[in-house]
Amino acid sequence: MKLVLERASELPLYRQLAEQIREYIRSGALSPGTRLPTVRQLAAEHGITRLTVQTAFNELQALGLVESFVGRGSFVAEKPPVALTAPLKLREGAQPPPQWFSQTLFADMLRLADHPDLISMVSAIPEGNAIPLPELQRQLKQAARDISAFMYGPAQGEPELREEIAHLLLDRGIVTSPDTVLITTGAQQGMDIVLRTLATPDEVLVVEEPTYPGVIELAAQRQQRVVGVPVDEHGIMLERLEEVCKTYRPCLVYTIPTFHNPTGVSLSSERRQQILQMARTYDFYLIEDDVYGFLSYREPAPLALKSLDAEGRVIYLLGFSKILAPGLRLGALVAGNGLLPEILSTKRTSDLTCSPILQRCLSGYLRKRHLTTHLQKLRHFYQERLEAVCGAAEIHLSGCGWRKPEGGLCFWVNLPQGINERDFYLEAAERGVGIMPGRAFFPQLRHEAYMRLSFGSNPPQRLIQGISLLGELLEEHGRRRLALASRAGRAVAQVV
Amino acid sequence: MKLVLERASELPLYRQLAEQIREYIRSGALSPGTRLPTVRQLAAEHGITRLTVQTAFNELQALGLVESFVGRGSFVAEKPPVALTAPLKLREGAQPPPQWFSQTLFADMLRLADHPDLISMVSAIPEGNAIPLPELQRQLKQAARDISAFMYGPAQGEPELREEIAHLLLDRGIVTSPDTVLITTGAQQGMDIVLRTLATPDEVLVVEEPTYPGVIELAAQRQQRVVGVPVDEHGIMLERLEEVCKTYRPCLVYTIPTFHNPTGVSLSSERRQQILQMARTYDFYLIEDDVYGFLSYREPAPLALKSLDAEGRVIYLLGFSKILAPGLRLGALVAGNGLLPEILSTKRTSDLTCSPILQRCLSGYLRKRHLTTHLQKLRHFYQERLEAVCGAAEIHLSGCGWRKPEGGLCFWVNLPQGINERDFYLEAAERGVGIMPGRAFFPQLRHEAYMRLSFGSNPPQRLIQGISLLGELLEEHGRRRLALASRAGRAVAQVV
Repeated sequence: MKLVLERASELPLYRQLAEQIREYIRSGALSPGTRLPTVRQLAAEHGITRLTVQTAFNELQALGLVESFVGRGSFVAEKPPVALTAPLKLREGAQPPPQWFSQTLFADMLRLADHPDLISMVSAIPEGNAIPLPELQRQLKQAARDISAFMYGPAQGEPELREEIAHLLLDRGIVTSPDTVLITTGAQQGMDIVLRTLATPDEVLVVEEPTYPGVIELAAQRQQRVVGVPVDEHGIMLERLEEVCKTYRPCLVYTIPTFHNPTGVSLSSERRQQILQMARTYDFYLIEDDVYGFLSYREPAPLALKSLDAEGRVIYLLGFSKILAPGLRLGALVAGNGLLPEILSTKRTSDLTCSPILQRCLSGYLRKRHLTTHLQKLRHFYQERLEAVCGAAEIHLSGCGWRKPEGGLCFWVNLPQGINERDFYLEAAERGVGIMPGRAFFPQLRHEAYMRLSFGSNPPQRLIQGISLLGELLEEHGRRRLALASRAGRAVAQVV
Repeated sequence: MKLVLERASELPLYRQLAEQIREYIRSGALSPGTRLPTVRQLAAEHGITRLTVQTAFNELQALGLVESFVGRGSFVAEKPPVALTAPLKLREGAQPPPQWFSQTLFADMLRLADHPDLISMVSAIPEGNAIPLPELQRQLKQAARDISAFMYGPAQGEPELREEIAHLLLDRGIVTSPDTVLITTGAQQGMDIVLRTLATPDEVLVVEEPTYPGVIELAAQRQQRVVGVPVDEHGIMLERLEEVCKTYRPCLVYTIPTFHNPTGVSLSSERRQQILQMARTYDFYLIEDDVYGFLSYREPAPLALKSLDAEGRVIYLLGFSKILAPGLRLGALVAGNGLLPEILSTKRTSDLTCSPILQRCLSGYLRKRHLTTHLQKLRHFYQERLEAVCGAAEIHLSGCGWRKPEGGLCFWVNLPQGINERDFYLEAAERGVGIMPGRAFFPQLRHEAYMRLSFGSNPPQRLIQGISLLGELLEEHGRRRLALASRAGRAVAQVV
């Protein structure tokens, strides 16, 4: 690909670059699926900054001409951009999303998740009914009485909230002092600041396979090396983890040991002991994401991995989005062992501190012990939904593999062989059902097809309706495959 | 330095490391001021992770045995840790700060800034009286009425708030669409996500010298290469910037062109044109930090650099901490030119989104046009304080260099020759006055001594009292220097 950039031109460099690549694509000189040179390569080759190249690529992505994939690079798009929301009516007055927002599949999914006419099982979030509005309003009003709530607070978080969280963590088996607690903007920020503090991009981060997409996107943003370790019905597979440790000497292992997202499994108690031993042997730290730990439906939830952590190898993350209200944007991180000062310094450089107004609202809510009652209600509320999903899956997803989770908000489905995840996702959206395609959960591309159904944000009837529509779609796919196979059979017969 | 680490030992590796270095320091084998090997070196030499070494260093820092400096490394501490707050009485019931929090000078200063008995001119923040509490309470209550405020909002921010901000920016000369606005957790997060999106740590970030300490701390956290360019009475010196551009090919230049922190100067209109031209010539982007832009006291403030930016070379940052209330933790970023998608993706991986509750509170406040009236009041409020500071400086800081700023919250003082900044800062604190020592504002150590006095958070009388105490301290330093000089004279006389 020959590119000519003129610094003297009126046209900015990035635009010159974008227009020339666009011409190559239009003319067919670069065919669909062709891998483009990396940002770094183009920058070096033409003596321009990576920023200029990245800006050009962004333009091409926004136009739907180029697709970028985590860890694989940028490619000429396979087909012209699909008008994802075309078959759905936009609600009166709702604004269409800005075009550039549709650049990645993940962003697409989030956008789709908000569409009012969709039965969305995309995001693992509660719905409005599950939020204790009057009590939160009361606490917010109370918090706003004091002018000091409108000032800066300590970077580590409000002392009262840290105390309440230390108290709450007793329910997860964690005995710790408020001094070890740092308040974060949700568990996502906890993840981000731990990664930034403890790992350089060239050090390996180990994740489960599948895992929470937010950690994959975060690693991609950091250009962090990620290695996945498969999960079976007892959680992360330790013999595979050990191989990875020997090969890559990772410094961090990110895990969701309780009600894993997306599979719903929990790490067995035997493996909990073993993984801590491995952390010591191979000198790595564990990030325990426990955002679903309070959402158990049958037996009491396994205690947190952190509760067994005598040596301070576990950095524990909690969030209040799944169990109280995402709009508070609050979570907590627990770290001991001399790690907290560095982590706190990263928090401070990230955004100084979380809002004291919201922190005091939450600490007031926790101090009144409202959360215990709320969690009891929430467990019944979600369990009813989970039962509806399992019942509907028995009937409509008979050709798929799935396992009933014991907690959390995720229902993980192995789709029948031969199904293309992306097509399935798009076709489901066209029929009015939002799902999360499996590829979002894997750091590398996979052959097997999966989808995640989140059952938190729809009432049982709507979940059943959604799964029945997915069942119809699966049947249709089955018929298409049969027809293809029989045509292929005829073709073979003619040739022979 | 010989270190023996036993993996089979009961003692964790980091602790073995810390205890052996501690022993070397105690025994005197490592003398004060000795530079320690880097984390990377020790990790490589002993086949352990950097995390283990860093944890050991953190322990030693917490004990006051080791000091770390931005960009220079870690050293054996010069003297045993000073009990900074000893001469001040802790208010009844106030908890002492956890020990590890005192690890860096910056953290020390922030801690000191909160001390109730101190005349603190440390932080550039408003005081409670300057916050329009009743109106914010009303807007907060209004925002909390709708359950959707407690859910996730769009990553880019609430559309209503982005509209209000686009409208507000007209006052700074910026004509832009709400689509180019991203809501951030204060200007600090804006800085952080721009750096993370647009610069790898090995690319050079240019800053003014002196500059806002938060950007230096952020760069240090990222191990980003930073190069400083001096500021004169017309702002950043462009001939020096050009040299830096030729040598380092920076990708980003961070600047505070209006009411610069800490010097209070504004970039001249001629240089504003020139720096944009240079951005084009040398292919870099500008981060314009405009957190003080609305705080002009005499003439109208110069319009934002962004208002002249035809080519999309300026990423503009705004914060509401200095002009409304830090506790809202809200700011905004404006970027065009295809940069926003990547920046937005970094925001999403950082913390998903800002709280819709607080965003709607702010947008309600802005929609009612309360900010205009508030800013008028605020300008009078701060101007009175600035006049008090200048009057007191005329009398008490006669041996120092300073210039009256035209806006902002910072008063920058060049201390007389021979004064050690750190000693001066500690002695001032002992007398009950909090200042920011100059070194916090420079990416590299300097010989000249400075201090920054922030005049936002104290009433005029207290500011005058604080400056008079500083004057006394300066006089005492003068007397000590004279006495030393005369002793030195005698000593010389005796030898001769």
